[in-house]
Amino acid sequence: MFISFEGIDGSGKSTQVKLFVEYLKNSNYHYLLIREPGGTKAGEDIRKILLHLDYRLFPQTELLLFMASRSQIVREIILPALKCGTVVIADRFLDSSVAYQGYGRELGVETVRSLNRLATGNLKPDLTFLIDISPEDAEKRKRAQEKNDKIERESLDFFKRVREGYLKIAKAEPERVKVINGNDDPELIHTNIVKIFEQHMKERTGKWR
Amino acid sequence: MFISFEGIDGSGKSTQVKLFVEYLKNSNYHYLLIREPGGTKAGEDIRKILLHLDYRLFPQTELLLFMASRSQIVREIILPALKCGTVVIADRFLDSSVAYQGYGRELGVETVRSLNRLATGNLKPDLTFLIDISPEDAEKRKRAQEKNDKIERESLDFFKRVREGYLKIAKAEPERVKVINGNDDPELIHTNIVKIFEQHMKERTGKWR
Repeated sequence: MFISFEGIDGSGKSTQVKLFVEYLKNSNYHYLLIREPGGTKAGEDIRKILLHLDYRLFPQTELLLFMASRSQIVREIILPALKCGTVVIADRFLDSSVAYQGYGRELGVETVRSLNRLATGNLKPDLTFLIDISPEDAEKRKRAQEKNDKIERESLDFFKRVREGYLKIAKAEPERVKVINGNDDPELIHTNIVKIFEQHMKERTGKWR
Repeated sequence: MFISFEGIDGSGKSTQVKLFVEYLKNSNYHYLLIREPGGTKAGEDIRKILLHLDYRLFPQTELLLFMASRSQIVREIILPALKCGTVVIADRFLDSSVAYQGYGRELGVETVRSLNRLATGNLKPDLTFLIDISPEDAEKRKRAQEKNDKIERESLDFFKRVREGYLKIAKAEPERVKVINGNDDPELIHTNIVKIFEQHMKERTGKWR
């Protein structure tokens, strides 16, 4: 089972990832939380290039480096883990690239999709939780947290495009991508996510048939 | 003016690049010879990852890293140089990716082309010299030189696919890609290349109109 969490910065996505990992731990699931870029030796070296302060990378270079890291972690870590029955959790995965680089940075949605296909060998999460929130509400939260990440200082218009992109993806793949209202109470959101996850696990293992 | 040299390993391509650079130097052309992967700070760091012995990169990761390096050198070095009227020479460029990764490694010709478009922003060489030789003849030369490069130990079948790929590219773009018989004497090949180059320069500058 491969699960990804998606959402714009400030959506509360990372909180939900933490709560969900906690739940998996307490339920004795064998799980693996991956981070991108990175997660493999090569990926960590790629990450260093992406975070390098000595040179300015062009957006296209960044996207390609990100995809290179993804290609490596999918084949080296994720696929073998899934084969062993591990629940793999990704805090952002292929939908982030489509939403941020494709819709947000306007590098071409089809281009990003075709890069994803090459990088992942067509692997997709079984289940994706899209924590949806308006860029305005996200902005309020971020200000409260005083975040200074580069991407988090992007304009509201950028995040509007990203959110719209996410919602288009969800509309095209409603079976995989579950839209969760990010304005709800974090505990309530978590309970809903666990419910959807357990339902999926039941369907997969056929417990109720 | 942007010129690339292409051909399978053992075709004599690098000898021709050297002779051509010598000619440009002696003719007082402002020129720049680029190497991939690398040629920029970020590109050199990417090159290190590609040549790393501590981990095994998957072919898809290699291709994406290569394209990331290309994206950076095109925007940081090649485009500004071309703007200043510099003659840019590339020992291998986008056709190598299509021939080697697309046709040779069978990663998908259309995939590689779309990666090239992203990496180069649609920049193509004005003129490409394809030094064509049969894989059998190339093999003989390589044995004579006792080369030990990883890629040079590939099977004959692989190089047959690469050569066929190159010839398909040349057939589709005869104006840009000039097929040169690699079995000819190196000095004769060089003379032909210079002749074609000078003809192109004349047409560009309109000297004879």
